Amino acid sequence: MKLDTAPPRGMKDLLPPEVELRDQASTTILSTYKRYGFRRVETPALENLKLLLGSGGGENEKLIYKVLKRGAKLDAATHGEDDLADLGLRFDLTVPLARYYAHNRATLPDPFKAIQIGPVWRAERPQKGRFRQFIQCDIDVLGVASEIAEIELILATSAALIALGLEQPRIRVNDRRILAAMATHCGVDAPRHGEFFVVLDKLDKIGREGVERELREAGYNDGGIAKLFELILSPGDHSPDGKLERLAALIPATAEAVDGLRTIVRAVAREAGDRATLEFDPSLVRGMGYYTGPIFEALHGGSTSAIAGGGRYDRMVGRLLGHDVPACGFSIGFERVVSILEERSEGAGPSRERIAFLFDRDDALTEVVAAATRLRHGDRVVSLTLKRKNLAKQLDDLAGEGFGAYAMLRPGPEGAEIKPLARRAAGGGGSGSDG
Amino acid sequence: MKLDTAPPRGMKDLLPPEVELRDQASTTILSTYKRYGFRRVETPALENLKLLLGSGGGENEKLIYKVLKRGAKLDAATHGEDDLADLGLRFDLTVPLARYYAHNRATLPDPFKAIQIGPVWRAERPQKGRFRQFIQCDIDVLGVASEIAEIELILATSAALIALGLEQPRIRVNDRRILAAMATHCGVDAPRHGEFFVVLDKLDKIGREGVERELREAGYNDGGIAKLFELILSPGDHSPDGKLERLAALIPATAEAVDGLRTIVRAVAREAGDRATLEFDPSLVRGMGYYTGPIFEALHGGSTSAIAGGGRYDRMVGRLLGHDVPACGFSIGFERVVSILEERSEGAGPSRERIAFLFDRDDALTEVVAAATRLRHGDRVVSLTLKRKNLAKQLDDLAGEGFGAYAMLRPGPEGAEIKPLARRAAGGGGSGSDG
Repeated sequence: MKLDTAPPRGMKDLLPPEVELRDQASTTILSTYKRYGFRRVETPALENLKLLLGSGGGENEKLIYKVLKRGAKLDAATHGEDDLADLGLRFDLTVPLARYYAHNRATLPDPFKAIQIGPVWRAERPQKGRFRQFIQCDIDVLGVASEIAEIELILATSAALIALGLEQPRIRVNDRRILAAMATHCGVDAPRHGEFFVVLDKLDKIGREGVERELREAGYNDGGIAKLFELILSPGDHSPDGKLERLAALIPATAEAVDGLRTIVRAVAREAGDRATLEFDPSLVRGMGYYTGPIFEALHGGSTSAIAGGGRYDRMVGRLLGHDVPACGFSIGFERVVSILEERSEGAGPSRERIAFLFDRDDALTEVVAAATRLRHGDRVVSLTLKRKNLAKQLDDLAGEGFGAYAMLRPGPEGAEIKPLARRAAGGGGSGSDG
Repeated sequence: MKLDTAPPRGMKDLLPPEVELRDQASTTILSTYKRYGFRRVETPALENLKLLLGSGGGENEKLIYKVLKRGAKLDAATHGEDDLADLGLRFDLTVPLARYYAHNRATLPDPFKAIQIGPVWRAERPQKGRFRQFIQCDIDVLGVASEIAEIELILATSAALIALGLEQPRIRVNDRRILAAMATHCGVDAPRHGEFFVVLDKLDKIGREGVERELREAGYNDGGIAKLFELILSPGDHSPDGKLERLAALIPATAEAVDGLRTIVRAVAREAGDRATLEFDPSLVRGMGYYTGPIFEALHGGSTSAIAGGGRYDRMVGRLLGHDVPACGFSIGFERVVSILEERSEGAGPSRERIAFLFDRDDALTEVVAAATRLRHGDRVVSLTLKRKNLAKQLDDLAGEGFGAYAMLRPGPEGAEIKPLARRAAGGGGSGSDG
């Protein structure tokens, strides 16, 4: 019986050139974050389902991969999923981090500045560019109520994006308290805020008319809707300071949040200079239900979809610890970043420091191995390869795989002769992308 | 309601110093393997259950974490686990690699030399030093029937262990065909070979008497058992060559396998010189059911439990592809290696290049951030930290966390003053290990 050899639906195999690009990207991000004083931690891929459910993860909680209980009795009494499963694969890195902090805080520095990079799983409907296993790359500051946390997160994330070659990131900021005050100002009762934000969040996708239509369909009145767009589409001064001032004048209840954003915006603008752009966008929502204060995202080029997103979530740890701990994080969408880098990358060219050592079936293996070892010093790659009948074709293939030279056994003290390999005309072999 | 904050049973959280040691170890291993021409690939954590089951994984197949089917109808008709689950977490990296190779071979180099490093999951009974999620670190050569594959795997793995500081690895080799010929020689029918090997595999743990007793209890006769120990406890020449020659003389059917091992042993011995020891051990079994030829393991110090294991598995890919592909791999037990390194490590000492930048609640955040940015160049770590009331205690804590200096805002062109931090007398804080 032949088995299906494709990876599970919605998941993918990574080929060597893909892994190499990813490793390069994660090394760049990690070394930037480390300079800002963040340190990497790790949690298991599986968490207790009780922790994942009701964690404020919103829609993502519906997409959890649940793991069958070991030896669960599948009798008539166990007809609910909860009887069958007690563990789930994490759907983000923030919920596990809150648990990690609550569990390990006695041995952690205070404040605690964490880097996490690792896979998360969501059973989403498969679609182009979206996968059911994907990498997230987060930094978080726990134990800091001051805006210095947001400032550092935004500066470190911008620096990482720039180091990756994603120049001129645009940072958009808002505050959940501003959104709440806006909704109240527009006549929306607190219990309906969440629903109201979900529609507002679609502004980039469906435009002003779409949002107006959906709000009207959901039963909001025209007066409130008009007020909303008056707040969002501020005329006049479009600088963050100007827009913040105007908002505070229209809705005095936003004063505290506006003050905070002003501090963040000024410090970031001064440091980032002309290397990043900063916008205050009162329509910015960010999906997660657990945010409590400033929220922010990073965009690149002309795209309206974020390559990084984050915010303050001061009440998540309290659910686990019994008392709240100020917390704030910024997460790079690693898969999106990698796909931008892949579009640009021409693949690693052949390098003289990558040598294919060709040997004959008749060569003494001890001689071959000894000669290869002599060549293999420093970072030089020496890969033993059996010589094929069609040597010209083989040399072509090797150049396509990134080898810049080949070697063969030769009598004498050096034991081998090295010759350069020309890059063949037609590229692609060995670095194709997977379907 | 307060939730349990411990990680799931049998799994663990990693603290910053633990992650840093692991990252260092994996960087060392990867850079060694790359010099030998191996390239890293990745597969998803989840595989189709059909692939994992019946893959020759032996006992490990019973330990698979199975994932609940999305939207599976839990009615009376679905009373088996197979109706409820269609995906499982991988229990090793070899079975997924065979699938990966079968699926992607058109775009992979030939021969294909893969590095894999990543977590695997086994629902084992929790016990000291054993975890249900752990890292494996494998190299594999696919498409090479020659012993050059085994030679390269053993040399690269030995080099990686030595680079990690695990000097003088002892490599033990055997061959599954030799084991089979030995079993036949001792009067064991082919269908009972597996069971026979399982008992033999316990020799290190329960000794000769234990193995003899268990074999007798399983119904093997005394004559066969005596023959077995005559083969294993070879008198006279204990060099690999001497033992191999003696075995080939006693059991002519081992000639081909003996020839292969002789080639491997000679080439490795010549290259490794006095940096590694090499033994031929006819009692070596290695657990996995899928091995077909040479098998090998690496040991360190006086321990009898392997820190790396591997072998040839020429028939695994055939199950997926319809025709066999020669294949061979060596897997470092990353967790065991890390625990040896942890015992040795004194933790990263404070470094002058790790600076805690202390600021007052009254300092202008823009000034603080600007001064910190000026200090942050090269690989230097500058971490912003709010000054506490008890500064002496805080400086102590910071030294314990590995900071070698601290800085504070100072008027003037430099904007900050840096002072060294003395390492406090009592170590441990911030780098303790988790229970």
